[in-house]
Amino acid sequence: KVNGDRLWSTIQDTAKWGGTAKGGVCRPALSDDDRAVRDWFVAAGREIGCEVFWDELGNVFVKRQGKNKDLPPIGIGSHLDTQFTGGKFDGILGVLCGLEVLRTLHDQGIETNAGIVAVCWTNEEGCRFTPAMVASGVWGGAFTKEYAYSREDPQHLRFGDELERIGYKGTVPCDGNVNKLSAHFELHIEQGPVLEDEKIPIGVVVGVQAIRWYNCTVTGQDCHAGTTPMHLRRNALHAACVMIDALNSIALRFSQGVSTVGVIESKPGSVNTVPGFCHFTVDLRNPDDEVLEEMEKEAEKELAEIATRLKVTHKFERFWTCPATKFHPDCISAVQKSVDALGYPARTITSGAGHDSVYTAKLCPTSMVFIPCLDGISHNERESAEKVDCEMGANVLCNAVLHFDAQLASG
Amino acid sequence: KVNGDRLWSTIQDTAKWGGTAKGGVCRPALSDDDRAVRDWFVAAGREIGCEVFWDELGNVFVKRQGKNKDLPPIGIGSHLDTQFTGGKFDGILGVLCGLEVLRTLHDQGIETNAGIVAVCWTNEEGCRFTPAMVASGVWGGAFTKEYAYSREDPQHLRFGDELERIGYKGTVPCDGNVNKLSAHFELHIEQGPVLEDEKIPIGVVVGVQAIRWYNCTVTGQDCHAGTTPMHLRRNALHAACVMIDALNSIALRFSQGVSTVGVIESKPGSVNTVPGFCHFTVDLRNPDDEVLEEMEKEAEKELAEIATRLKVTHKFERFWTCPATKFHPDCISAVQKSVDALGYPARTITSGAGHDSVYTAKLCPTSMVFIPCLDGISHNERESAEKVDCEMGANVLCNAVLHFDAQLASG
Ligand SMILES: NC(=O)NCCC(=O)O
Ligand SMILES: NC(=O)NCCC(=O)O
Repeated sequence: KVNGDRLWSTIQDTAKWGGTAKGGVCRPALSDDDRAVRDWFVAAGREIGCEVFWDELGNVFVKRQGKNKDLPPIGIGSHLDTQFTGGKFDGILGVLCGLEVLRTLHDQGIETNAGIVAVCWTNEEGCRFTPAMVASGVWGGAFTKEYAYSREDPQHLRFGDELERIGYKGTVPCDGNVNKLSAHFELHIEQGPVLEDEKIPIGVVVGVQAIRWYNCTVTGQDCHAGTTPMHLRRNALHAACVMIDALNSIALRFSQGVSTVGVIESKPGSVNTVPGFCHFTVDLRNPDDEVLEEMEKEAEKELAEIATRLKVTHKFERFWTCPATKFHPDCISAVQKSVDALGYPARTITSGAGHDSVYTAKLCPTSMVFIPCLDGISHNERESAEKVDCEMGANVLCNAVLHFDAQLASG
Repeated sequence: KVNGDRLWSTIQDTAKWGGTAKGGVCRPALSDDDRAVRDWFVAAGREIGCEVFWDELGNVFVKRQGKNKDLPPIGIGSHLDTQFTGGKFDGILGVLCGLEVLRTLHDQGIETNAGIVAVCWTNEEGCRFTPAMVASGVWGGAFTKEYAYSREDPQHLRFGDELERIGYKGTVPCDGNVNKLSAHFELHIEQGPVLEDEKIPIGVVVGVQAIRWYNCTVTGQDCHAGTTPMHLRRNALHAACVMIDALNSIALRFSQGVSTVGVIESKPGSVNTVPGFCHFTVDLRNPDDEVLEEMEKEAEKELAEIATRLKVTHKFERFWTCPATKFHPDCISAVQKSVDALGYPARTITSGAGHDSVYTAKLCPTSMVFIPCLDGISHNERESAEKVDCEMGANVLCNAVLHFDAQLASG
């Protein structure tokens, strides 16, 4: 069993990098605070005798050797970056539990068959640089390295430049076929209301719903707010608002669908000028790829109708497609065995959020463990989880990894 | 008659300060380009022997002496600042015609009874610093000097600091009861479609419609775009969009009403976070103060209903009230006499845009002259006007001022 007090104090201590007045964390990927927490993670890994390295995308690997040098290590990964107004747990818990597992194995002098590696994946959140999970995505072969490097933040700073600036552009190939893992396990807060509602401390995650991201631009014509009669306007912001309301309604009509506009900007940004331009992002999700496809078709149709009716032109372009993921039965069963052995209440669950595990699953057996979070709230400074749940989750994770390692050993 | 070629080349030449690739002008108030065009205006005034000074708000006065030193001068004013994506004519034409009138009087050695002063009013547009017409407003007693100084631009730079930075914070009181005018005339492009539609080159402006500006903030709760079911969201941006559509519909239901949301910002600005905060501005106008009051009441009611229905809180706060203005019969008749004497086709018209003349009208007889602009478009880089119309407008302005001066002389 892990050391719950140590895990909890590590969560609290490291939250100082990017810590906010409201008790949250603002630590966007590749910021100075992201560098600071990475520096701490590297030092903590070395302290327990681990080999530490990072790859071309800045993914940091803290590796404890196993007996069998021929086997790729088993990864326990997640991310240390946060949303602009994020919490102390989203992603962070998974990395710190990876470290806690290594510390526990170290303390107890446990030798594993394969090595065990705690991984901090770069830019999982996708808030500073879109899309989300871009660095685990390069590792898993979903994106090229060049694509990731070229992504720009809202200030037009490039991912590649910022990675270099914070000193985490390594030379180890970011390629899961080269820098291999035998499996990948990830502990995460659920970020939704199910476990809390049902008072169940552990979710055995069997998959992740499908996600698609879009940019929508709307072009009308700048004109004077006082002199231009309503019927002569081509108001890009008004049209965008009607579109955003339509996108919201689409989600309500498709079972389990969600739809979100998280970013909007309108130009020229003057009180007395009717905006001639508007850009917004769209996030559509559904557990079922086919239903998501229908949601997209519906969105395309309705946005086009609105554009025509309101005399603006528009472009609705998908820039990220993340199909529904089914986790690997061996990993799911390792987690289930771990839960059973520990005697914890648990249920299976599908994730509404994307995770680095979606992309590791493309190249190695993968699954996840969820624990409840307060009111199901995440991507919010109020995000919170109980110490006891974190500790139970870490125990499940540790034993799942040991189960999987034993299975590897037995061939 | 004025020198139309000189006027036209002055318009073209001075458009270099803030000139854009699309042929427009981006010269927000108190920017470096605003300083550059002011420096030119000051020098041009001195070149024809005028006294030049600026007041506490940076309003620049270029004054040609009259015979009767006891009479306050007659003002011909407008503004040299532009929208972020503005044109070469809005405001600029009025100041340059003021200068052209002084140059014409100078060339022809005409002595007037009262002095004639060309005025460049500061920050008429209200795009960098809200509200519009703030400096003529201080002169006219609608705002305090301190209020104007405290206004902040989108980067939180203060009006007072920026005025000092560009070197135009003078010591002459910005107070129309101290630095008096006998009257104020302003030439402007119509910024709307009426004159062009009717092929009439001159509008005799009899008044300006009422304007009200508001800030609306909407507060919900940041949450995860993938894990939060639609019915549990308190989406501030979605609620704002529904409100913006409602505000648009309100304008359609009130005769001659217009309604515009020109600025929107949403936080935290992440693709996968449901926005917990949104701010937008509202501009409501109507020629009739009472109808505008009804539009406001309706907006208040509908916004409150939407907030309740969509489980967000909101604040809808008016920060600028500019009642409908009726110009002075003596000034209107001076313009009408001028038009008649010149034999130009003309019609009376009410302005949909606010102008510095709205605030000079509070302390001295005031009226305006309109000329047509291409497709009625303004607050757009495509804004355009014909040379012949500018010249005719300047002639009307010049003769209106001389008519008014003659009337002053005859007591
Ligand atoms: N876990 C998490 O919040 N990931 C961000 C990716 C997503 O949008 O689901
Ligand atoms: N003339 C002009 O565009 N003024 C700006 C003030 C307004 O919004 O009407």
